[in-house]
Amino acid sequence: MIKVALLGATGYTALESIKHLLRHPEVEIVAVTSRQEGNPPVSSVHPSLVGRLDLPLEDLDPTAIGRRADVVFCCLPHCASAAVVPDLLAAGCRVVDLSADYRLDDATTYSDWYGQSHVDPERLGKVVYGLPELFREQIVPAELVANPGCYATAAILPLAPLVKAGAIDPADIIVDAKSGVSGAGRTPKLMTHFPECNESLSPYNVGRHRHTPEIEQIIARHAETRPEVIFTPQLVPMDRGILATIYVRPSPGVTEDQVNAIWREAYGSERFVRLVDHLPGTKDTVDTNFCDFTARAVRDRLLLISCLDNLVKGAAGAAVQNFNCMHGFPETLGLL
Amino acid sequence: MIKVALLGATGYTALESIKHLLRHPEVEIVAVTSRQEGNPPVSSVHPSLVGRLDLPLEDLDPTAIGRRADVVFCCLPHCASAAVVPDLLAAGCRVVDLSADYRLDDATTYSDWYGQSHVDPERLGKVVYGLPELFREQIVPAELVANPGCYATAAILPLAPLVKAGAIDPADIIVDAKSGVSGAGRTPKLMTHFPECNESLSPYNVGRHRHTPEIEQIIARHAETRPEVIFTPQLVPMDRGILATIYVRPSPGVTEDQVNAIWREAYGSERFVRLVDHLPGTKDTVDTNFCDFTARAVRDRLLLISCLDNLVKGAAGAAVQNFNCMHGFPETLGLL
Amino acid sequence: MIKVALLGATGYTALESIKHLLRHPEVEIVAVTSRQEGNPPVSSVHPSLVGRLDLPLEDLDPTAIGRRADVVFCCLPHCASAAVVPDLLAAGCRVVDLSADYRLDDATTYSDWYGQSHVDPERLGKVVYGLPELFREQIVPAELVANPGCYATAAILPLAPLVKAGAIDPADIIVDAKSGVSGAGRTPKLMTHFPECNESLSPYNVGRHRHTPEIEQIIARHAETRPEVIFTPQLVPMDRGILATIYVRPSPGVTEDQVNAIWREAYGSERFVRLVDHLPGTKDTVDTNFCDFTARAVRDRLLLISCLDNLVKGAAGAAVQNFNCMHGFPETLGLL
Amino acid sequence: MIKVALLGATGYTALESIKHLLRHPEVEIVAVTSRQEGNPPVSSVHPSLVGRLDLPLEDLDPTAIGRRADVVFCCLPHCASAAVVPDLLAAGCRVVDLSADYRLDDATTYSDWYGQSHVDPERLGKVVYGLPELFREQIVPAELVANPGCYATAAILPLAPLVKAGAIDPADIIVDAKSGVSGAGRTPKLMTHFPECNESLSPYNVGRHRHTPEIEQIIARHAETRPEVIFTPQLVPMDRGILATIYVRPSPGVTEDQVNAIWREAYGSERFVRLVDHLPGTKDTVDTNFCDFTARAVRDRLLLISCLDNLVKGAAGAAVQNFNCMHGFPETLGLL
Repeated sequence: MIKVALLGATGYTALESIKHLLRHPEVEIVAVTSRQEGNPPVSSVHPSLVGRLDLPLEDLDPTAIGRRADVVFCCLPHCASAAVVPDLLAAGCRVVDLSADYRLDDATTYSDWYGQSHVDPERLGKVVYGLPELFREQIVPAELVANPGCYATAAILPLAPLVKAGAIDPADIIVDAKSGVSGAGRTPKLMTHFPECNESLSPYNVGRHRHTPEIEQIIARHAETRPEVIFTPQLVPMDRGILATIYVRPSPGVTEDQVNAIWREAYGSERFVRLVDHLPGTKDTVDTNFCDFTARAVRDRLLLISCLDNLVKGAAGAAVQNFNCMHGFPETLGLL
Repeated sequence: MIKVALLGATGYTALESIKHLLRHPEVEIVAVTSRQEGNPPVSSVHPSLVGRLDLPLEDLDPTAIGRRADVVFCCLPHCASAAVVPDLLAAGCRVVDLSADYRLDDATTYSDWYGQSHVDPERLGKVVYGLPELFREQIVPAELVANPGCYATAAILPLAPLVKAGAIDPADIIVDAKSGVSGAGRTPKLMTHFPECNESLSPYNVGRHRHTPEIEQIIARHAETRPEVIFTPQLVPMDRGILATIYVRPSPGVTEDQVNAIWREAYGSERFVRLVDHLPGTKDTVDTNFCDFTARAVRDRLLLISCLDNLVKGAAGAAVQNFNCMHGFPETLGLL
Repeated sequence: MIKVALLGATGYTALESIKHLLRHPEVEIVAVTSRQEGNPPVSSVHPSLVGRLDLPLEDLDPTAIGRRADVVFCCLPHCASAAVVPDLLAAGCRVVDLSADYRLDDATTYSDWYGQSHVDPERLGKVVYGLPELFREQIVPAELVANPGCYATAAILPLAPLVKAGAIDPADIIVDAKSGVSGAGRTPKLMTHFPECNESLSPYNVGRHRHTPEIEQIIARHAETRPEVIFTPQLVPMDRGILATIYVRPSPGVTEDQVNAIWREAYGSERFVRLVDHLPGTKDTVDTNFCDFTARAVRDRLLLISCLDNLVKGAAGAAVQNFNCMHGFPETLGLL
Repeated sequence: MIKVALLGATGYTALESIKHLLRHPEVEIVAVTSRQEGNPPVSSVHPSLVGRLDLPLEDLDPTAIGRRADVVFCCLPHCASAAVVPDLLAAGCRVVDLSADYRLDDATTYSDWYGQSHVDPERLGKVVYGLPELFREQIVPAELVANPGCYATAAILPLAPLVKAGAIDPADIIVDAKSGVSGAGRTPKLMTHFPECNESLSPYNVGRHRHTPEIEQIIARHAETRPEVIFTPQLVPMDRGILATIYVRPSPGVTEDQVNAIWREAYGSERFVRLVDHLPGTKDTVDTNFCDFTARAVRDRLLLISCLDNLVKGAAGAAVQNFNCMHGFPETLGLL
């Protein structure tokens, strides 16, 4: 049994991770942390966990965590994560970091988009990006894995093989993305107050959402020319789910069929990518670790339509998939 | 034109009042207040008002309001309202108070249920309860009207005539009530954070919701014996609407038909009460000032099923209806 | 491996059963039936199943099913179910019937409430009601199990031990129940058309919902006097979840504490009943097989507040739990 | 008073038209038609109308309508509308046609996109497109006005002045549009069955939605080169509202400021276009006749973000606005 601790256990990505880890036959959850006073059981904060996980919330330091846990799921906010990850690694833990702190390769891009200096800049550029479909080999031996952003996964999975094959122009990519509200986290704000966002659809952070450089960086690894991505996030009145409608310009002569062939080649044996013929809706993937996508040629463009559950394949499920890779378990363990 | 000021203009009851008053042919909105810094236009806080009402939010004292306005719609929270109403009246304004501060008849009941002493206790018991269907005559000349609670209106309208007619037992009343989330106000809280309350139905304040004494007090005025109401509020994942399912014990021999006859007698000429034969749903009344209800005999009980829009007939619409009464306007002005 | 067939596989209870059975380590799904033309894969009707279950939908007769399957999950509508169950049993299958056909003990009550004669009336009264928490011993050896109605489970679980202990009056029970829309099935109707039922709360079948006699029948087995239940179902704009707010009259001197003691005695070792102190909301139980409940004394009544997921503990999860009982598996297999 | 009849009164656009016309001081509704048997009151089909409009639903022929009404709001489905409009005109009625039948200029495009021959092809090309902001002068004297499609209005209003000014390339327009479910009409279908579309976001009719040629046709009138529009509709789990996220390529040197200047020039005195600085959400416009939009430069593109209520500015409100134009009334009558 692998002993797992979860940091930042009061949020949604931690809750979702816990639900998946409770089903995992090779995992024992040994600690859940938060700065809540009085060590209430995690199930008092997440009543759906009553009788399933009643461990107390503790405010533990990295050394204490290291004594108890083999692996840490770090569900802290960005900046908070990089403040503890080095000590967790030093304490002998392997870490899956669900924050954004280790996704970008350089500290300048980080500070440009996150508005703060990175506290562990030397490590940037050396951390594997936790998308097993693209970087499985580096994930297997990793001590630290940067779990991808939810929007980023929905965009990168369909785009990467097409860019790599030269089938589309990496400098003309528009990602019109829509997300359920859980993607905004668990801290109450006016934007996510029910009577504000219910029965409404609204764009936010247009042209400056932080998943933009993340998408471009990963696409760039597969592209011969510099990618340019226009990324538009929009808030949808539903709990979960991301739909990315991606508009790309195909290289001359590239057809829907060729796109499908490239995808089959790249993902034919992947368990969590589903290449579908129908137009997928987010509900097809909710509560699963699948990412579904399809292509449609319209006039001179290709539309790539992709969806996933932002809390599963976009966060906790991907983390468990990475965990499985890191331990040589079947990748589907705890995920089907 | 009657000059109207709205206090506490950043909340939902104020927004809804503004929308109705903008349609009112005899009203000019002259001031909207809030403690927002910098006097931004009210439409920057409520973007639906852009181009409809762009008055600045001002932090005005009662004297300044009195110089500008004939009538005040006071949309402040309870306790805050009673702190300014006396000065508004002294400044010559007539006031429709949408808070709970002047609904109860005595200060002890107030402090028992609201957990704070009333700051204007002498006035309690002398303020008319602003339900025109029951207290029209006292509303007409009033300087101050206590606008009823949303749940209270949904319960009192069907109950009062039946209690008065002796058709039901006032000591055996169960009000199982369900409300949309706007009833909880505009301040973000975990309970009303979208991913918490969406796709969920949850009871709250069971046995201790503050509309309980309000319902009992008004019922008592029509009853020969002391009423006892069990009131259970529940939060429903929708913006607006209250459904009250009321279980009462009919006096011997009282039938559905007799209930309908009593209601027709009481409300036959009321414009905003609709006695319906079908089972009403909240959507029938959303964005209207109607309260729809019907009765069903089931075994030895009568079920009274009542619905309304908590922000209209349950708040802003009722306030405009009271305003119309106070000024001798047709009660429907601005409301149809 | 137990070979399982699902009849009526295009509906929601079948879909939910499939999802749970796919996680069950001792089950192989061998057939999914429907009258769809052309034998499309079940995943074309339920796109969430793509890559998880792509068996063709077949129109099989009971004999053919008997040759393939050990156990049948019958997800047909009422009346349709009783038309095939006898032949399935004759073909050697054990059957969990998710329809209402075998829940009631006598054919007259059935025809009174369902408006049709029962086609297999001799069997009525001999089929075990599939609530393991109450009838585990009879479920273990059963060839046919009548899976309970979703509302019925939410009402019976909290009520039964209290009635049995004489702690409440069985003749004065009010069940005010609210359900998500999936409870209405998958056939499009105006009532469940999104723009009709979204943002609305509406009662339906007041005083004549078919789960009423089911609740009364099971309560009667535990009561010394004839139970009378007033049951009011209401449609809530959410996918899943039932909340039952139950108003009962306690026997003299019975307190909340005693209610809790009775429940602990009855359910202390039950894995899928959670006795909670907080007020539960439906979301606490969504996607789980738990039924959460709590009690509150308000004036002279007791409120029992109970919730569950109508498609899991209210249907498919209960069916899997029954299946586990019938096979001597741990009851939680496939359900946690 | 202008006498108005509504054809096809059981649908959502008719209901919404009725609600607006009831508030209109110069209108009397004289007939509501449908093929319902038995002439039930329209309020039995739309319970929100009880006590507001209880006219019987009648199955009237054009001659009978012509005897009663001055103006007809034709809310019939496409094809059905063109089958009666000629006779309504012959009977002396002026007609606002809310169907798609008279929006396109030629019968071939119509049959290509609607899959049926047009039954009144001679009239095509001569009917004014009912967008007062662009075609007010032709609307004023018109006998027949083709009310625009909901998606089309959301796209055309921001695009047309920019194309006309040469500020953007008409051959590179991507409209990623999202609509609430009421846009799909009132006939129950699986796609709009609550448990299917709730909590899901799904694209449909990608590359072949019928508003595409409508948008291109109107844009073409303002463009020097042939427009090409990629239009992607998506279904959002909310009742009302359209958000169009439009990606265009600016002509060299064109900035956000210039876009705003062009828009102010075109729409500065329009009452129902709101040029906003913030990112608009659909809720800002729900239940209003406003279309809100803003521009953002992102990399080498311009994003135009536009929203409106599909049932108001996208249908019934636009129809009333056209009606007002046709009668020389202030355009806002009944609409504020």
